[in-house]
Parts: sequence; C-alpha cells; structure tokens
Amino acid sequence: MGQNLALNIAEKGFPISVYNRTTSKVDETVQRAKVEGNLPVYGFHDPASFVNSIQKPRVVIMLVKAGAPVDQTIATLAAHLEQGDCIIDGGNEWYENTERREKAMEERGLLYLGMGVSGGEEGARNGPSLMPGGSFEAYKYIEDILLKVAAQVPDSGPCVTYVGKGGSGNFVKMVHNGIEYGDMQLIAEAYDVLKSVGKLTNSELQQVFSEWNKGELLSFLIEITADIFGIKDEQGEGYLVDKVLDKTGMKGTGKWTVQQAAELSVAAPTIEASLDSRFLSGLKDERVEASKIFQGDYSTGLPVDKAQLIEDVRQALYASKICSYAQGMNIIKAKSAEKGWGLNLGELARIWKGGCIIRAIFLDRIKKAYDRNADLANLLVDPEFAQEIMDRQAAWRRVVCLAINNGVSTPGMSASLAYFDSYRRDRLPANLVQAQRDYFGAHTYERVDMPGSFHTEWFKIARSNSNN
Amino acid sequence: MGQNLALNIAEKGFPISVYNRTTSKVDETVQRAKVEGNLPVYGFHDPASFVNSIQKPRVVIMLVKAGAPVDQTIATLAAHLEQGDCIIDGGNEWYENTERREKAMEERGLLYLGMGVSGGEEGARNGPSLMPGGSFEAYKYIEDILLKVAAQVPDSGPCVTYVGKGGSGNFVKMVHNGIEYGDMQLIAEAYDVLKSVGKLTNSELQQVFSEWNKGELLSFLIEITADIFGIKDEQGEGYLVDKVLDKTGMKGTGKWTVQQAAELSVAAPTIEASLDSRFLSGLKDERVEASKIFQGDYSTGLPVDKAQLIEDVRQALYASKICSYAQGMNIIKAKSAEKGWGLNLGELARIWKGGCIIRAIFLDRIKKAYDRNADLANLLVDPEFAQEIMDRQAAWRRVVCLAINNGVSTPGMSASLAYFDSYRRDRLPANLVQAQRDYFGAHTYERVDMPGSFHTEWFKIARSNSNN
Repeated sequence: MGQNLALNIAEKGFPISVYNRTTSKVDETVQRAKVEGNLPVYGFHDPASFVNSIQKPRVVIMLVKAGAPVDQTIATLAAHLEQGDCIIDGGNEWYENTERREKAMEERGLLYLGMGVSGGEEGARNGPSLMPGGSFEAYKYIEDILLKVAAQVPDSGPCVTYVGKGGSGNFVKMVHNGIEYGDMQLIAEAYDVLKSVGKLTNSELQQVFSEWNKGELLSFLIEITADIFGIKDEQGEGYLVDKVLDKTGMKGTGKWTVQQAAELSVAAPTIEASLDSRFLSGLKDERVEASKIFQGDYSTGLPVDKAQLIEDVRQALYASKICSYAQGMNIIKAKSAEKGWGLNLGELARIWKGGCIIRAIFLDRIKKAYDRNADLANLLVDPEFAQEIMDRQAAWRRVVCLAINNGVSTPGMSASLAYFDSYRRDRLPANLVQAQRDYFGAHTYERVDMPGSFHTEWFKIARSNSNN
Repeated sequence: MGQNLALNIAEKGFPISVYNRTTSKVDETVQRAKVEGNLPVYGFHDPASFVNSIQKPRVVIMLVKAGAPVDQTIATLAAHLEQGDCIIDGGNEWYENTERREKAMEERGLLYLGMGVSGGEEGARNGPSLMPGGSFEAYKYIEDILLKVAAQVPDSGPCVTYVGKGGSGNFVKMVHNGIEYGDMQLIAEAYDVLKSVGKLTNSELQQVFSEWNKGELLSFLIEITADIFGIKDEQGEGYLVDKVLDKTGMKGTGKWTVQQAAELSVAAPTIEASLDSRFLSGLKDERVEASKIFQGDYSTGLPVDKAQLIEDVRQALYASKICSYAQGMNIIKAKSAEKGWGLNLGELARIWKGGCIIRAIFLDRIKKAYDRNADLANLLVDPEFAQEIMDRQAAWRRVVCLAINNGVSTPGMSASLAYFDSYRRDRLPANLVQAQRDYFGAHTYERVDMPGSFHTEWFKIARSNSNN
C-alpha cells in the first residue's frame, strides 16, 4: 500500500523519498518507479538520511500495521525530525491512538494527522479516497499533493477533504469500513435469495448484477460482484465462486464500528448483522454439523416468477442499503457531536464517491440529502430517500418473507426492514419494557399524557387485584 | 440494595455491621432491622469503628455505584482493614476493574471478590441470585452466609456458586443482564404482534400471559407482564400500560454485552436487537416525525385467527428465546476460554433458576443440556432444544412474516430466526464476500475442495474475459 501510494505521489510530479526497515522493499519501490515511467522516487536505507533528504517543513506518511508498529515508527522518525515537521499515519488506526500521538507530538513541536486511506492496493496507486484528520496546519502543508493524489470524480472533485480535528479521520474511515461490511453482506444476501430461491445460474447472476450496475445500484461492489460470477475455476470444472469456501475473514474495523455504535447509543442493526454473519460464516464445521441435525427441505416448492424476483431483490437491496448508510452516518454524527468535531456529513459522502470500496452513484444522493438539510435526523426521512423507500417497501417485504419461508437467512435485509419499521413508528412496545423495569427495579417511567417521572407499586397493586 | 441485602443476611442469623457515608441511611437500616424482627444489624457512622466491629478475618460487602465510587470506598475501607481481610463488590462492575482491584488488594494482603447480584431490591431482601468471582479463599470465608442468603430453589439448591477466578462473576452478571434485555424485547414483540395485529385487549393480554406462565414460558418476566396488563391507570381512564411512554432506559450492562460479543467474535443478534430497540425507543420525537412522513395503513386487513395467532406467537417467543440464550451462553463460553476461567455453563443456568430477573423453568432445560454435554457448541444443537425448534419453526416463520406484512417490527424475533437459519446452513453466501475481499484487497480465500490458501487475479481475468 505504501509503495503504491509513493508511486502515485511521484507520478503526480512530487519527488518523494521512501524508507522501509526492510531495505529490499525500498529497492523494489525505486525499481518500480523506474519501470513505471522514471518517477521521482528516492530510496533510503536508514531513517536519518531518509529524513534529512526531505524538504522542510518535512511531511512523512507512514503506512505500517496499526498499533505498536506505528509507535515504533514514530519513535524512529521523531528522533530525526525537527520542530514544525509533520507525521501522517495512513493506516486503519484506532482513533484514540491517533489522538494520543497527536498530543505527544505536539509536545515535541511536531504536527500529526491520522489519515484514512481507502481503495486497497489499486486505489493507493491510481487514486484512493483520503480521510485526513488532526492538525489543520499539517493538512495545509500537504493539501496540494493530496488533491492530486486522491481519486478524481468529474462532477465533484478530488476524493479528499480535511475531515476534522483529532482522530476524526480514522473514525470516519472506520465507519466507512463498517458500511462496507453492510454493503457486502446485503449483496451476499441478494445472491443467496436469487441462487437458492430463484435458482439463478452464475451466468444469470452475472447478467443480473451487470444490469443492476447500470442503475441506482451502480457501484464498485456491484461491478466486481458481476465480474466474480463470470470467472471459471482454473483448477477444475465450473465457476470459481462455487469453489470458494464460505468463510469470511475480517480485520477489526467492522467490530470497532459495532462497538462504537453501542457506545454512542446509535442503532446499527444492518452493520451488526453483517459482522455477525462473518462470525457465523467462520463456524463452518459447526454449521455442517447443525445442518445434519436440522435436515429437511426448507424450500416451499412454490413457483417463483424469476423476473419479478430479480426486480424485488434489487429493490430490497436498495432499500436495505439506505438503512445501512443511515446507521453509519448517524454513528459519525453522534461521535462528531460528542467530540465537537463538527464533521460535514455531505462532504464525507462526496469524498467516498470515488477511490474507495463503497464508491457508488448512491453517495451522490446522500450528499444531496445533507446539502438539503445538514442536520437531517436520519437519511430515511430525507424526502427523496423517503419516497424511494415507500416505492420499494412492498418488494422489500416480499423478499424477506420469501427468504424466511424458504429457510434462507437474510439477516441484513430483515434487520434493515425492522430498523425502518421501528424508526417510522410513533408508538413502539417499549412502554411494556419500561413498565417491567419499573416493576422489578423501580426505574420509573414517563407518561404519554403528562410530564414528570412516575413510579408505580405494580407488584402490590397486582397482588391486591388478585385478592379482590 | 445494600440495605436489603444486610437485612437478608441478618435475618438468616448472621450479625452484621453496616456503614454508609450518609449516616441517616445507617440509622434507617438499623430502624428497619428492628421493625422487621429485631434483626442483628449494627450501625456505624465512621469507617474505623465499622471495620473494627467486624470479626477477623473481616468480610465487607460494598454496594455502591460502579466505577470511581468503588475505588473511593475501597480506599476508605482498606485504610482500616488488615492482612487476610476481604472486600466484596456487589455492584454491576466492569470485570476488568475487578481484576485490577483484586491485584491491587493482593499486594496489600487483602482478598477481593466481584459478586454479581441479581433480583433487584426485592431479590436482595428475600433471596437474590449471587455470582461471586475472584479469590476462592475469600469465597470460602463467606460461603456459608451466601448459601443461606441466596434464593433457594427446591430441586436445585441455593442460587449461588463460586463462578470462577478474576472478574468472572461480574462478566457472568453482565451477560445475564444482556440476556435479560433479550427476554424483555422478545416479550415486547409478542405483545406488539398480539395487540397490533391480533387486536387483543389488555384484559385478553393478561389472560394470554397468565396462561403462558403455566407452561414452558413460566418465568418471572412473563408473570410480571401478565400483572402489568391487569393494572388500571389511577390517574385516568383505562390501563396504566397504555399511558407509559414508549421509551426504555438502560444502565450499561446490555451495551457491554454487545461490545464483548463483538470483541469475542460471537454472533449475538438477538441481544443486539434488544439494545438497538432501546436506542430507537429513545428517539420518540424522531419517530413521531417519521410516522408522519411514512403515513398509511400498514395492516394487511386480512382476517386473523386469534387462537392460532396466540399459539404461534407463543411458539415464536419460545424459539427466539432459545436463540437468545444460545448467544449469551456462547459469549460466556468464549470469554471463559480466552481467560482460562473454566466456567461451568450448566451451573450458571442453575443459579439463575431463582432470585434473578431471568429466573424461569426454561433454565432447567439449559442446565440439563449442559449436563448432557458440557462442551455443547451451541444450545441449538442440543437434541431436546433442536427438537423444540423443529416443532416450532413453522409458527415462528408465520409470526415474523405476519408482522412484516403488517408493518410491525419484530427485530428480536427476526434476528433470532436469521441466526437459526444461518447457523443450521452448511453453505452460506459468505463465499461471495470472501471472493470480493480477495478481489479488492488480496485477502486470499480457502477452497471447498482442497486445502490451502488461494489468491486469484479476479480483475485481470474479468477484463480479459470481457475482451474476448
């Protein structure tokens, strides 16, 4: 990733020094720079000469594993840096680590940025989405470089902005990844329903996803999904996707997103369902055993109108996606309020329009929703999204029920639907839960018809009722 | 809570000294001890004389707010305690705080226990469920008292056991509370479906829940739910439950449970749904606004067979409950493995059979499941639970779909069903997610037909395919 980002920067006309503890990686980068167009990349085998080669005030971008390696790298660099120099961490770092380091660097007269970088290897080389947060002064040093290095989206500019203070850049990248988990899970469920209930072949699935990629679902993830269904297994017969083991790995940012949602009292059921699905996917052996215990044909055997199903699933996927993004944006909004970061949600949607894994035409709609109302309580109630959901809810309900009746789990879509059906209801059965809490724990309750806090001796009244 | 526990201990024949910074509370406790049967409770207004009044080795039980107040109380007490004395924290403390304190106390020659106490005020007075963890030596000091103070269940003894080392007592109590969130949410959903779709009156609901409390759902929470539906509003017409605002409070242990589940890679969708439902319940104003935007009659208007619906909902509630407990038990199991606590899951089910909020006949079935197989991978695959789920799944699917088609959210029941349908499937669509991850991030994948780790250049193959 670091190598690719360095080549990208050099290609934009900015001479760059590179250093790695493993000297062969340095040489490899310099070699690639030559091959890929004599790019101005200069390699160094020791930190002192690396740092000394950089023009002051120096800006150093680290791309190392989050956690302890970042601290070690900072210690190495800081020994050679001078007052006013700047360190940028481009890893998936926990935002509080960035805040701790920013403070420590400040005491030494150094500036610090935590910068989320999305787009994988390919994005780093050709234009990632960049989410820098921390010292604004440091951002200004490097802004002209970032504006050129980032992905360029024709109608909305480079995919970078100064996110905000402290660890906000890392936090936003973390939630981006949580949203990515949600997108991938929802697509997997669409696949499952089309394949398991609709009996679509891989070839048909490729066509369906290619078709979907021409409309409102147009996105990197839908595009690569279409690609995947077209790839044959080179080691045997049939398609590769069918040979891939149904176990999904993960790297921590999805987990953090779920934990932060809970911390911030923000409901994020779609993102939670996507994390849980990864956990359950990992229990392959247990699932195989359980499938023997719960044997039987779960399909209803009822005829399915394929064209109708495909259209229904498309709509269910889109509606669920709105819920997932609503949750992610609300996590960011809640954190921004807690930390006083003043984040601009529409601007975040804009910088996700290119470069990153969740890039999609859909993000433009989100940007416009926040342009219309920066204080939007929830994406669901933006007039355009609200209308889109209204138009799709019949299909959405059909898909989830069809899946349930055929024993196919759609945890993300059903959690999204439950989220919508809870959020749009003026009266939930939470009155009963609060009554229970007051019954056994004297936690008090509010009333619908008068202000104040109330407690009732439920037990005593119930016993006296039963004695009458 | 502390007052009630002191009176309970004294009533069992153990003389007890009491101290509180607020001296009036001390006097109040002594006064209550007199009124409630001349119980041997001795009050003290300063910590020195309080500690000196206790027989050595001294055992002091603290019941103060978790966090800083516990540290302050420990500092106050420890100044007067002597080598070999013991402090017990009976609050809902974060387990790592207990482990930190146990170590600090050990350095001073003092013993320490973190003891979960469930049952609310009433339980503390008449018999709680106690979950002590930490120093086994300290547990032994006080075991004879705890065995008498705890709730007594005829066929399975006192609701207390030495849970395990370190913070295990607090951890188990935390998950107990998470399970409690799940139970309460599932009951609320049953209520919502019966009321909103079945149009049951409060009087009918009272009858239904009373009836349910005679069968496999027999439990404290079902019992108090029946009570609640019978209570009239003393401040106006109708029933009190309808006047209670649909906003549920919370105190943190449910949140911790969800965060720990994520930390331990354990899927806990039912418990997550119950936490999210509390969050969404809190957004009353937003929901009222959203309900205006998403106006319309969501009910299908189709006729409902009331008797069938009630029976279906009963079965859906029971099946969902099994999933919720499976999740809770697996969180404990995973933590026990991580920390080397060696927790006995069957024994935990036993001590929850009385005294605590989740007490239920159902816990006996869980105990028996773990008695049959202490290493059970998941409660769902215990032969008895598996059969119970098989028998109920048709009703379960009917209820969730009926709710969806009537615009009633059942997040807990549908998350439980998705959990079941994911867990019992040998093949999930996670292969697609892993293929996507390998496509954009070179995260590699395993294959179903051969061992090893594989990477494919999906993008290159897809582009070469499309050029052919």
